[in-house]
Amino acid sequence: MAHALRLAERGLYTTQPNPRVGCVIAHGEQVVGAGFHERAGQSHAEVHALRTAGDQARGASAYVTLEPCAHHGRTPPCADALIAAGVSRVVVAAEDPFPQVDGRGMGKLRDAGITVDTGLMREQSRELNIGFFSRIERGRPWVRVKLAMSLDGRTALANGESKWITGEAARADVQRWRARSSAILTGSGTVLADNPRLTVRLPAGEDFTPPWRVLIDNRLRTPPHSHVLDGSAPTLVLHNEQYAPVDSRYQSAELAVVAEQGGALDLHEAMRELARRQISEVHVEAGPSLCGSLFAAGLVDELLLYIAPVLLGDTARPLLGLPSLTRMAERWKLRTIDRRVLGEDLRLQLRPSS
Amino acid sequence: MAHALRLAERGLYTTQPNPRVGCVIAHGEQVVGAGFHERAGQSHAEVHALRTAGDQARGASAYVTLEPCAHHGRTPPCADALIAAGVSRVVVAAEDPFPQVDGRGMGKLRDAGITVDTGLMREQSRELNIGFFSRIERGRPWVRVKLAMSLDGRTALANGESKWITGEAARADVQRWRARSSAILTGSGTVLADNPRLTVRLPAGEDFTPPWRVLIDNRLRTPPHSHVLDGSAPTLVLHNEQYAPVDSRYQSAELAVVAEQGGALDLHEAMRELARRQISEVHVEAGPSLCGSLFAAGLVDELLLYIAPVLLGDTARPLLGLPSLTRMAERWKLRTIDRRVLGEDLRLQLRPSS
Repeated sequence: MAHALRLAERGLYTTQPNPRVGCVIAHGEQVVGAGFHERAGQSHAEVHALRTAGDQARGASAYVTLEPCAHHGRTPPCADALIAAGVSRVVVAAEDPFPQVDGRGMGKLRDAGITVDTGLMREQSRELNIGFFSRIERGRPWVRVKLAMSLDGRTALANGESKWITGEAARADVQRWRARSSAILTGSGTVLADNPRLTVRLPAGEDFTPPWRVLIDNRLRTPPHSHVLDGSAPTLVLHNEQYAPVDSRYQSAELAVVAEQGGALDLHEAMRELARRQISEVHVEAGPSLCGSLFAAGLVDELLLYIAPVLLGDTARPLLGLPSLTRMAERWKLRTIDRRVLGEDLRLQLRPSS
Repeated sequence: MAHALRLAERGLYTTQPNPRVGCVIAHGEQVVGAGFHERAGQSHAEVHALRTAGDQARGASAYVTLEPCAHHGRTPPCADALIAAGVSRVVVAAEDPFPQVDGRGMGKLRDAGITVDTGLMREQSRELNIGFFSRIERGRPWVRVKLAMSLDGRTALANGESKWITGEAARADVQRWRARSSAILTGSGTVLADNPRLTVRLPAGEDFTPPWRVLIDNRLRTPPHSHVLDGSAPTLVLHNEQYAPVDSRYQSAELAVVAEQGGALDLHEAMRELARRQISEVHVEAGPSLCGSLFAAGLVDELLLYIAPVLLGDTARPLLGLPSLTRMAERWKLRTIDRRVLGEDLRLQLRPSS
């Protein structure tokens, strides 16, 4: 299963909106087939693995990181393919909560007399597809907020200058988190201030599915000729129903109306809208106001925090705008799930304490 | 020499104002004597080591982490003791810059026909006595600023509440840094706000020399009955010459006048005053204003930063008050010399980039 998970990871940047899945077919210790899902619309992991196994699949065990599908999507059901190939046992890491699968894949296999075991390295498989599971199970994407700050928790100078707080290694790392995301989300304030491209820049030869650029732009105030409206990546603009485009500046983007909540765009509703559009992992690169609102709304699932060994002082821009606390007991608690050194910078990966 | 350094470290909390020194006497690989300096006024490391070696010191090599003294201080010169014991070779890690030694110790040994080598693990020896070297060579103590903050760089809520941001392991660790310091420095603002004790609390049975409590209290406005004036540890109050105590509240403390510089107490002069009082390592636990002023004055040699995995928001108190920057190139750059996990918290040890 560990081998199957390593294979699944090879689809990290390309399977959107599908989950990353790997499959290994073996007789005991001897691997006879292996494959992973690379791209939506193309063959699933099981099909690749069965193809390499050929006749040797008969009587073998198949290790699949996600429950085989039971329905005709863009490809035929993998459960049928495993049955046809004559495997005798299927070991599944994680059950697929997708409504058209959700146990049916395993049911089909069992009905065909195949032994099915589940749960081996389930957590690792779910972690690899944390956005997919979030979208299917919670109806909203997994939201990962990326912030880069100085030691004193500042993201930019008072005049807005923020290039560059962190070093090259940290900035290259951010590109990989962008690449694995289904969408990169920002607010119109950040577009006005920094005019970011929000595209992915990986070393030449590395493949990825371009993530959506999602812009929260309540009043449709993004300037014409902003990079996010240049059509270089699929772009979605979320706005309030009271506003409509006054000119052609949004022609290369999709527009979607999201309800208001207390004078601001309803972020819960925005996330549901993204889930409906099959967006699984959202990578947020925004200012203290939008990031703070996401935190305050309980919509941040993960904080990816880069800390550079510099000081910017108390007049520089704060990390997050959050409601004022009156008691220490009210503080937002997180737990650190990873710490890493990148060049001179430090990267912390944190999730809210449950 | 590594053995001698480990011995020297055993004096970490007790040798103030003397340096931490260890000594090993050996014939080849065979150690015949070992010792360290434990407390000012008591025997130096060489004397302890020679005592345990006895007659076996004759013809042996002595490894000393700091140049043996050549003068009659509170104890007789160690150079003379080494000569009298008949050692044939002395290996010195670091030269002693103390004016009454400064090469004289090694000179005496060489004059007596003893081979003297220097520089073996010099950096480690200097690091162990970084305050001592700073005081003798630069005329000011080594200044280590300790700060504990949230992920968003905040040290207290807007209402001042700061207990506790970090966890128990981090707070216990702070006590060890206090214990190794010659002085714990704070400002009157912190005393007014938090009324800290600024004493050392180590587990029972662990010995330490109580560090000075140094209070920067320009206008002598510390409230009576403040913990820092309770006489429970030696206390020094630095103030401006225009002010004098109006009552007996300062009776348990020493007072020292420090010149003003631009309306505030001259921090450079304050540090020179501390050095004159044999204070080698200063541990600063103060608010954003005094810590920021020390940074801005170029007087911070080390930042000991504890980061707790919590968020306090942008209305909470900033880490440091620093002059506003207009260009990113002006940012204060530091280099990380140590990173450590303490419970759920992270500890970074940083020094200004030279």
